[in-house]
Amino acid sequence: MMQTNEQEKQDTGSLRTIQFEPSGRRITIEPDRNLLQAAQRAGVDLVAACNGAGICGTCKIRMINGRVTPITSSELKRMTQVELDQGYRLACCTVPLEDVQVEIPTSSLPFGQRLQVEGVEIVITPDPVIQPVQIALEKPQLTDLRSDLSRVNGVLTEKGLDKLSGNLNALTDLSRGLRDQNWTVRLATRKSKSKTVLVSTLPDSSPLLGLAADLGSTKLAVYLMDIQTGATLASVGVMNPQISYGEDVVSRIAFANESKPNRLLLQSRLVAALNDIISKLCDQLGANPNQIVDAVMVGNTAIHHFFCGLPVKQLGESPYIPAVNDPLDFEAKDIGLTIAPGAQVHMPAIIAGYIGADHTSALLSTQIRKDGQPRILVDIGTNTEISLAVNGRLYSCSTASGPAFEGAHIHDGMRAAPGAIEKVTIVNEEPVLITIDNQPPVGICGTGILSGISELLKSDIINPIGNLDSTNARITEFNGRPAYMLVPAHLSGHGREILITRSDINEIQLAKGAIRTGIEVLLERASLKAEEIEDWIIAGAFGTFLDIPSAIHIGMFPQNLAVDRFHQVGNAAGVGAKQMLISRAKREAAEKLIDDIEYIELTIYPKFEELFLNSMVF
Amino acid sequence: MMQTNEQEKQDTGSLRTIQFEPSGRRITIEPDRNLLQAAQRAGVDLVAACNGAGICGTCKIRMINGRVTPITSSELKRMTQVELDQGYRLACCTVPLEDVQVEIPTSSLPFGQRLQVEGVEIVITPDPVIQPVQIALEKPQLTDLRSDLSRVNGVLTEKGLDKLSGNLNALTDLSRGLRDQNWTVRLATRKSKSKTVLVSTLPDSSPLLGLAADLGSTKLAVYLMDIQTGATLASVGVMNPQISYGEDVVSRIAFANESKPNRLLLQSRLVAALNDIISKLCDQLGANPNQIVDAVMVGNTAIHHFFCGLPVKQLGESPYIPAVNDPLDFEAKDIGLTIAPGAQVHMPAIIAGYIGADHTSALLSTQIRKDGQPRILVDIGTNTEISLAVNGRLYSCSTASGPAFEGAHIHDGMRAAPGAIEKVTIVNEEPVLITIDNQPPVGICGTGILSGISELLKSDIINPIGNLDSTNARITEFNGRPAYMLVPAHLSGHGREILITRSDINEIQLAKGAIRTGIEVLLERASLKAEEIEDWIIAGAFGTFLDIPSAIHIGMFPQNLAVDRFHQVGNAAGVGAKQMLISRAKREAAEKLIDDIEYIELTIYPKFEELFLNSMVF
Repeated sequence: MMQTNEQEKQDTGSLRTIQFEPSGRRITIEPDRNLLQAAQRAGVDLVAACNGAGICGTCKIRMINGRVTPITSSELKRMTQVELDQGYRLACCTVPLEDVQVEIPTSSLPFGQRLQVEGVEIVITPDPVIQPVQIALEKPQLTDLRSDLSRVNGVLTEKGLDKLSGNLNALTDLSRGLRDQNWTVRLATRKSKSKTVLVSTLPDSSPLLGLAADLGSTKLAVYLMDIQTGATLASVGVMNPQISYGEDVVSRIAFANESKPNRLLLQSRLVAALNDIISKLCDQLGANPNQIVDAVMVGNTAIHHFFCGLPVKQLGESPYIPAVNDPLDFEAKDIGLTIAPGAQVHMPAIIAGYIGADHTSALLSTQIRKDGQPRILVDIGTNTEISLAVNGRLYSCSTASGPAFEGAHIHDGMRAAPGAIEKVTIVNEEPVLITIDNQPPVGICGTGILSGISELLKSDIINPIGNLDSTNARITEFNGRPAYMLVPAHLSGHGREILITRSDINEIQLAKGAIRTGIEVLLERASLKAEEIEDWIIAGAFGTFLDIPSAIHIGMFPQNLAVDRFHQVGNAAGVGAKQMLISRAKREAAEKLIDDIEYIELTIYPKFEELFLNSMVF
Repeated sequence: MMQTNEQEKQDTGSLRTIQFEPSGRRITIEPDRNLLQAAQRAGVDLVAACNGAGICGTCKIRMINGRVTPITSSELKRMTQVELDQGYRLACCTVPLEDVQVEIPTSSLPFGQRLQVEGVEIVITPDPVIQPVQIALEKPQLTDLRSDLSRVNGVLTEKGLDKLSGNLNALTDLSRGLRDQNWTVRLATRKSKSKTVLVSTLPDSSPLLGLAADLGSTKLAVYLMDIQTGATLASVGVMNPQISYGEDVVSRIAFANESKPNRLLLQSRLVAALNDIISKLCDQLGANPNQIVDAVMVGNTAIHHFFCGLPVKQLGESPYIPAVNDPLDFEAKDIGLTIAPGAQVHMPAIIAGYIGADHTSALLSTQIRKDGQPRILVDIGTNTEISLAVNGRLYSCSTASGPAFEGAHIHDGMRAAPGAIEKVTIVNEEPVLITIDNQPPVGICGTGILSGISELLKSDIINPIGNLDSTNARITEFNGRPAYMLVPAHLSGHGREILITRSDINEIQLAKGAIRTGIEVLLERASLKAEEIEDWIIAGAFGTFLDIPSAIHIGMFPQNLAVDRFHQVGNAAGVGAKQMLISRAKREAAEKLIDDIEYIELTIYPKFEELFLNSMVF
């Protein structure tokens, strides 16, 4: 009888229980679901660059036990025999036939990655949107039956201050707040053109806090500030949980466009992650979320639309139109963000479909138009946004540099997590490696692949077109083409060899070529030569760790520029968000910036193809 | 085996299934839940004036089959032996011991009641808040990458119209709307002091609709209007579903204050009922809810607060303070009302804790201050609001007339449903009855009890103090005190006798005394005599069916006033809501009205007790 039941469970339509290691999280799924869907349902973060299309090879997992469907042709193409022998599979191609136990290897886990939240700061004088008002009220009695808001407004009028308008969200909190604080409170208020509204009812003398965040495709950098002093009280970087639904925004837009619930899921997972951070940071500081009376969020256009709950259908198909590009101010409560009841979220303007509010914020914090000198800002990511400022004018473009710098589409690519090779030096024809946290090598991150290719170029193992010298001792073969053996199997952390393949070189050629093309187009549009630009500002997490000489050597940036012209400013978008959070003037400056930008759509720029082909050469 | 299972189900902690007749609705509940809780959970509307405290006797049900807990002392007090013999129980005192089948008798069902939605209309010129704009746009292309909103604003600027601000709710709809309508659309827009915002993106030439509603404690009167022509396209009256959580607002406030989920439940049931009506009316008219671009809602202070999701704790305890009394405008989406994505709800100002926005609306529509002549408005309900206008001045008070006019607290009281006695005439010492829909009598509604008592007074069967003449042939006894036999058991619709008890007479004395006291206080405050007031405006559903001579005869209104001084205007609050929906000027007039009102709190008025005692006498 027992036997029969077990048999039935394996073969027919029973539910399967999947256990994910090392977290130990379990989920029960329908029999036709694959392991990627199970991981997404369980909230287990698993990299899936193509969101289950079976083409990127990033969602590698290892079977611990339990029967699953046979290896597919797609997996044979993306994985080595050694990997398959060790039980590795692609989660999106693997359907459990019974209860199974699965390991998510470090290289497929988006956690543990090097997360950079800090950027170069410029001290500014706080001039926050939200103002506190201290008031002490007389209790209501049968001879004085004014409503709670009218009572507050009575005192404000006596003090010569503006009356507050009824804001439904903040009013839900006022009556209790007044009584809990025994009629002596600190009110957070927000003045706009036509009225002043109540934001939060707080205990007397509570500091007013604000939340700034850079919502990246990969990472969320979140800052909690005292908006009156301008001090950053806490900051934290976490993975964007949307990564389980596609590593790049294109995959996520495709996922969102499958159904409205999908789109709203991308919104709610992002909001939930922020709420989780808010709760933790508040606990840490002994603060109450009702003290967070303002928020500024920046992000690329797609993340901006997901976060606001705006439609992304028109953003996913040519000509890639945002629903709105103006700055937005909306109630935090409308999207479920658990901060002060009447708090708003400010999102600065978007520049174009592929240049988001994060770039606006970076342009602001890097003061790119300062003193009118020619200056370039390159914010490197899956899309790289580039802006050139000269004499108050601003030219911007966006270029699809691809996810190669994030380790995707690279044969042994991985994120900047422990064990990732981040620097390669070739000494006496032998590669010397530096890995993150000095762990045994398990893959190559973006800076590592760039450094490796640069070294191979220097050693003439790669020629300017990108071909490998097959006479070199470390050249082996992969998929019928030459590949460079960076780490033999017995020296790696996972017992498999680590290669730089011809196709990896090609990916990097495409990526650096795209960035270089953008730079050349902007220089041409502004009638400037590279040498005339003294200040090259490199922003973004990848940009921070980028080895500038390697980047120049492979031709990502023009040759003959002194390394000291480059300034790696870190998370410039996050710094801009913090500035806008504490300064009304900075919000206005960001709005003015946008008006002066000339956006250049590269794909229709006359010399685009010619420039791109030239830029691909090393 | 089967036997054992059944036994277990009856005696231990198994779930019970309750089936309610005549609707046939079923619900499964935990074993310790009573039938009122089951009905509330199932969404079966069952009158429960005290919300399950076991003191009002309104939640009568009849057991069809199934075992339940024994009759309680509370039921013995509220019900006759005949009722108990026939299987009647109070739902709040009855806990099922197994699966049971229960009948909700007509007298306990809030449906089928006479619902009045119409009132006396005054034709006004439409001047709506929302304005339509027709535009035709060029499609975006790679050479013109403006966002959808910027594209719209480009055309508006060319036409010399205001740019639209980004409103997150309406933007969720814009991108799809523009593409679905092939770039030729009608936009609904709302202009405020500082900006013009998008409300809805509609097909070219769609009529713009608006929703007006009077949210009564008992009844929701809902109107769908063409806001440009001012035509009422449809109207409907339904029961307020909150009635299942307490018949009067005091019980509902108590229920809401038990927990936040309770409070939000009262909000969501109200919103769900409105959404249901919206969906039906739109189907009926072939309209789309996105065409409903504006809404005006009025209601008493408690319903107003429930509807907005505002706290009611401070409203439920002396000195009964509203959170806010100013007019409110908030996003319909914030409370889940399914109309146009950017539509707002306007709620006019509240006058005091017990004089709500519905009275503001009634004052507006009855033009009470017109020509400065003395005029009184009496809006009769569980709370009766009374206003006196003279020479531009306005005095208002609220008086707890109680639910007796709704049939509650009356021994055989019921709502104005089929079978309710609505008029009594005593001819040759025998009562002649008129019932609603000419059904056999099953109870007495508010107008019926008033009419009956008036007739008993005329026939000297009741003396001025309210005592019954025990020598009359129809006098019987109830609870040790005399009662008048209105219908013997064999002539009634349910086989039980229908009485007017001494305690019923007392309830009516209290109710009419409360109204009369309010009138006397306002007259005294304005230094006027009743005869100096030419126009007595009687509003509200009960007021519409009120027999004015009976009301004067029992002393609800001053003697010696000609009947033609009384004007029964029906749902004046609903009419005011409609006016504010189509006219900006009327919204402003309502706001001005409020500034000039002197609210008189009766309970602290010096001569209140003396006046009240005098007013109770017939």
